[in-house]
Amino acid sequence: MTNPTACLLIIGNEVLSGRTKDANLQFLASRLGEMGIPLREARVIPDVPETIIATVNEVRAKYTYVFTTGGIGPTHDDITAECISRAFGVPWEPNQEAWALMAAHYASREPPTEFNAARQRMATMPRGATLIANPVSVAPGFIIGNVHVMAGVPRIMQAMFDQLAPSLQGGTPVQSRAVHATGMLEGKIAEGLGQIQDRFPQVEIGSYPYYRENGGGVALVAKGTDVAAIEAAITEITAYISELGFTPLAGEPG
Amino acid sequence: MTNPTACLLIIGNEVLSGRTKDANLQFLASRLGEMGIPLREARVIPDVPETIIATVNEVRAKYTYVFTTGGIGPTHDDITAECISRAFGVPWEPNQEAWALMAAHYASREPPTEFNAARQRMATMPRGATLIANPVSVAPGFIIGNVHVMAGVPRIMQAMFDQLAPSLQGGTPVQSRAVHATGMLEGKIAEGLGQIQDRFPQVEIGSYPYYRENGGGVALVAKGTDVAAIEAAITEITAYISELGFTPLAGEPG
Repeated sequence: MTNPTACLLIIGNEVLSGRTKDANLQFLASRLGEMGIPLREARVIPDVPETIIATVNEVRAKYTYVFTTGGIGPTHDDITAECISRAFGVPWEPNQEAWALMAAHYASREPPTEFNAARQRMATMPRGATLIANPVSVAPGFIIGNVHVMAGVPRIMQAMFDQLAPSLQGGTPVQSRAVHATGMLEGKIAEGLGQIQDRFPQVEIGSYPYYRENGGGVALVAKGTDVAAIEAAITEITAYISELGFTPLAGEPG
Repeated sequence: MTNPTACLLIIGNEVLSGRTKDANLQFLASRLGEMGIPLREARVIPDVPETIIATVNEVRAKYTYVFTTGGIGPTHDDITAECISRAFGVPWEPNQEAWALMAAHYASREPPTEFNAARQRMATMPRGATLIANPVSVAPGFIIGNVHVMAGVPRIMQAMFDQLAPSLQGGTPVQSRAVHATGMLEGKIAEGLGQIQDRFPQVEIGSYPYYRENGGGVALVAKGTDVAAIEAAITEITAYISELGFTPLAGEPG
């Protein structure tokens, strides 16, 4: 059985301008991998309606799950929910549950805070959306079809992901094993490594040089869903490193 | 005159698996913005030939400049150069200049290091490519058409970008001004801010909540190529913040 797949859309001019450094890709990549839902693509796109709509429609047809981050706040540049509605061809309208939740939240604040038009925007969603609870700041994310719409602020996004994770149908977890050696050069090991990769087509072998004050080296990572094959590949790589006269050390460099 | 546009392709399974945190997007976004070549999209894609080829062909038709990072080392998972050749429909063959450069480099090492098949791979490029010098580790990047192929290691990528930057035809620099206020909530300012945005269609106004130990707030950023309009927008936003009873502070929060 092949694993489900995921795509992440990072929506926001602030990431494309360099103002904000994205911190969501790595979190989601790791968590989804553990659940057997490998992230196959990520795109950073601007707050441009046509771009958001076209991209959502392209990737929701292509991947099992789509996740979006960003653009669900109360200001004029928060256009994700409206664009997702247009992508699905459904009305963008008040969501009863979100509305009730947020109205109660603002009424209960001390002093009570107005649930004004801008805040009501955060309770306005595609028709048919189901909510993703937001334990941090109340305003929920939502799910429509295979598209999961989350906040861009990492702390809120992570809390939302924890809420929605149980609803995802995972696959065989992606696991990895690593070995590294200091003083080794990629150009030296490449040929033998390629031969090991050829013998383990079901394992994804990656070669990553690293740089440290006290000398660089190369880390070799074997990744996949077949743990026995991963471990066999790492055993061969380890033996090959020794053969070349380097000292293989288990795991990634510290 | 409208500015040229850019797209970044981050090529590598290690970014999509969460093993490696990308550090190239923010650097390139900032540098390109300063040169008036706004980054309009970034994609993280895996080491899958069909995906690389299709994506390169899609985005090179769509944007003025395409930049790629990753996949130009000597190992089996370094397939960027070969895929770019296939995307352009030209042979993937030894580049005379790169070959001479690298052969000389390996011969001059003490002890001399073999310029073996794996290392020759790094001198194998699409026919017609011109080199991007690599002052850090010799093996060059290259340019073909509007596609600029660079290393994934940030230090090397940045050195390569410094080399190629003078060859890019820039536009009007994208500039920004910011103002922030602690204690302010986005839901409070959203309506008036949207009205200011409507009056300055040529300015991109972004609203970014921030969180600090001693209280959060909102940063408002006005961005674009028309400095007078940016400054006028920030003046209006600053006055609006005061009107609401908060203390506007110039710039982004420290």
